[in-house]
Amino acid sequence: MILDVSTIIEVLGTISFTISGVFSAMQKRLDIMGVIIIGFVTAIGGGTVRDVLIGSTPVSWMRNIDIPLIILITAICTIFFKKRIKTFKVTLFLFDALGLGLFTIIGVQKGLSVGLHPAICVALGTITGCFGGLIRDILLNTIPLILHKEIYASACIIGGAFYLLMLPFIDAGVAKMAAVIVVCGIRIVAVRYRLKLPVS
Amino acid sequence: MILDVSTIIEVLGTISFTISGVFSAMQKRLDIMGVIIIGFVTAIGGGTVRDVLIGSTPVSWMRNIDIPLIILITAICTIFFKKRIKTFKVTLFLFDALGLGLFTIIGVQKGLSVGLHPAICVALGTITGCFGGLIRDILLNTIPLILHKEIYASACIIGGAFYLLMLPFIDAGVAKMAAVIVVCGIRIVAVRYRLKLPVS
Amino acid sequence: MILDVSTIIEVLGTISFTISGVFSAMQKRLDIMGVIIIGFVTAIGGGTVRDVLIGSTPVSWMRNIDIPLIILITAICTIFFKKRIKTFKVTLFLFDALGLGLFTIIGVQKGLSVGLHPAICVALGTITGCFGGLIRDILLNTIPLILHKEIYASACIIGGAFYLLMLPFIDAGVAKMAAVIVVCGIRIVAVRYRLKLPVS
Repeated sequence: MILDVSTIIEVLGTISFTISGVFSAMQKRLDIMGVIIIGFVTAIGGGTVRDVLIGSTPVSWMRNIDIPLIILITAICTIFFKKRIKTFKVTLFLFDALGLGLFTIIGVQKGLSVGLHPAICVALGTITGCFGGLIRDILLNTIPLILHKEIYASACIIGGAFYLLMLPFIDAGVAKMAAVIVVCGIRIVAVRYRLKLPVS
Repeated sequence: MILDVSTIIEVLGTISFTISGVFSAMQKRLDIMGVIIIGFVTAIGGGTVRDVLIGSTPVSWMRNIDIPLIILITAICTIFFKKRIKTFKVTLFLFDALGLGLFTIIGVQKGLSVGLHPAICVALGTITGCFGGLIRDILLNTIPLILHKEIYASACIIGGAFYLLMLPFIDAGVAKMAAVIVVCGIRIVAVRYRLKLPVS
Repeated sequence: MILDVSTIIEVLGTISFTISGVFSAMQKRLDIMGVIIIGFVTAIGGGTVRDVLIGSTPVSWMRNIDIPLIILITAICTIFFKKRIKTFKVTLFLFDALGLGLFTIIGVQKGLSVGLHPAICVALGTITGCFGGLIRDILLNTIPLILHKEIYASACIIGGAFYLLMLPFIDAGVAKMAAVIVVCGIRIVAVRYRLKLPVS
């Protein structure tokens, strides 16, 4: 595993999505195996759907054992230290937003690498960012958060579009970091000021 | 975009499935982004599952930007003009039935083109026709309509089988139109006369 | 269809998963088409998800018409003879456990054949064994059994790992049978003595 910036942030994103899945599952009183499964699904769901849709198979977590290992360790630690981590709710939210931002950009890049239309790349980035949480909510039998609360998919779409628009003008690495900050920023502002999209 | 008959009807089918998704989502009081997502999923769900199952990736809506564009425009128009369209309920139902018929036949043809067994082609057509609505219902957290009400999958199966049986004897275009009419006809008769399959 | 041991047990597994799906669907009072669809999904769901994740498409039930045929016949027979079969509840449970064991080993083998990491192979086996029931529960709008009751996924993981650990030392056929027995044994002991994983 090469320790470049994007790997570090991908690992952080995976960790925080796992924690979010484990917390959701524990609130539904699932058994330990159920909790770990939900943690996995939340962390890998978005990337898996993305890989399946573009035909990049076996899907990425199957080709890199590090990711499942990180998820497993994170899930077990979360279960053991749940009290301590619960008080870190804000930190968690920030990690989740960071993960959302990075996973979105990874998805956009994957789309570019297989030659898709820019708008489709943004959709692919949004899927990569959002579908883990979506599948988690379906498994836990609730209307997915993404569909009726907070600005979630919108943050991915804006961040993904921002990345593509910046790309011709600035360094790819800088554009990436800026786009991640855009996604995080929108999420943070939306939750902090309770911004919601209008109900149609 | 070539304006042949099948393109025109595919566009009509996409439009009506989008409208059906948007209406279902608005009844659940989702926000605008949630409504648009459900509209997309309803319109592309069946074709996406079909493409993934046969390995035709990237899935078709990712290779043809026209389809996502049509869905987006339709969803936004539906949200704005919802009152006006609501009174067109019967027209809507007819478009939905037409879409169901055509999507079924497109699915059957895709199966034939990759050399699948005729019965599997009919299954693939049924999946193409029905899975958009199925995924919509799962996301909205209700028991899928297809599973407990009205003759829906059955209409696809009969229409798909009819198409394959006609194919050796008549012109492909005529067989296609006839099969679409069979699917629509079954749907219309079933809903008009409240026909239901027996509960087992 | 070659009548070797693994084919026979695969057929038995398919039959019992179909029966389990049909029974679940009949309890929810679905119509006949809905019941048959749930039977199909329960029997082929695990293998389909497995094939899609590793990119083995068209998925296996599309390339072998025997499997859909067996499912269809089983579903129809189950609907007709439901009273008689209901008294065979224990037999059913045993078939289901047997199917779970065999489907797990088939999944592990598929993973090995495409060169995946052993731990990923075990995950793939677990997916093959469990996802049919998981999708069935999602379609019927209940929290999936696998997530909150009984030792289910755990049995697959232990059995799959056992198979891989035995493989270098004993004959592949023997290892396979032993692993199937391990999965079945864990399921039977867990249900007989009401063993549950702790709620986290």
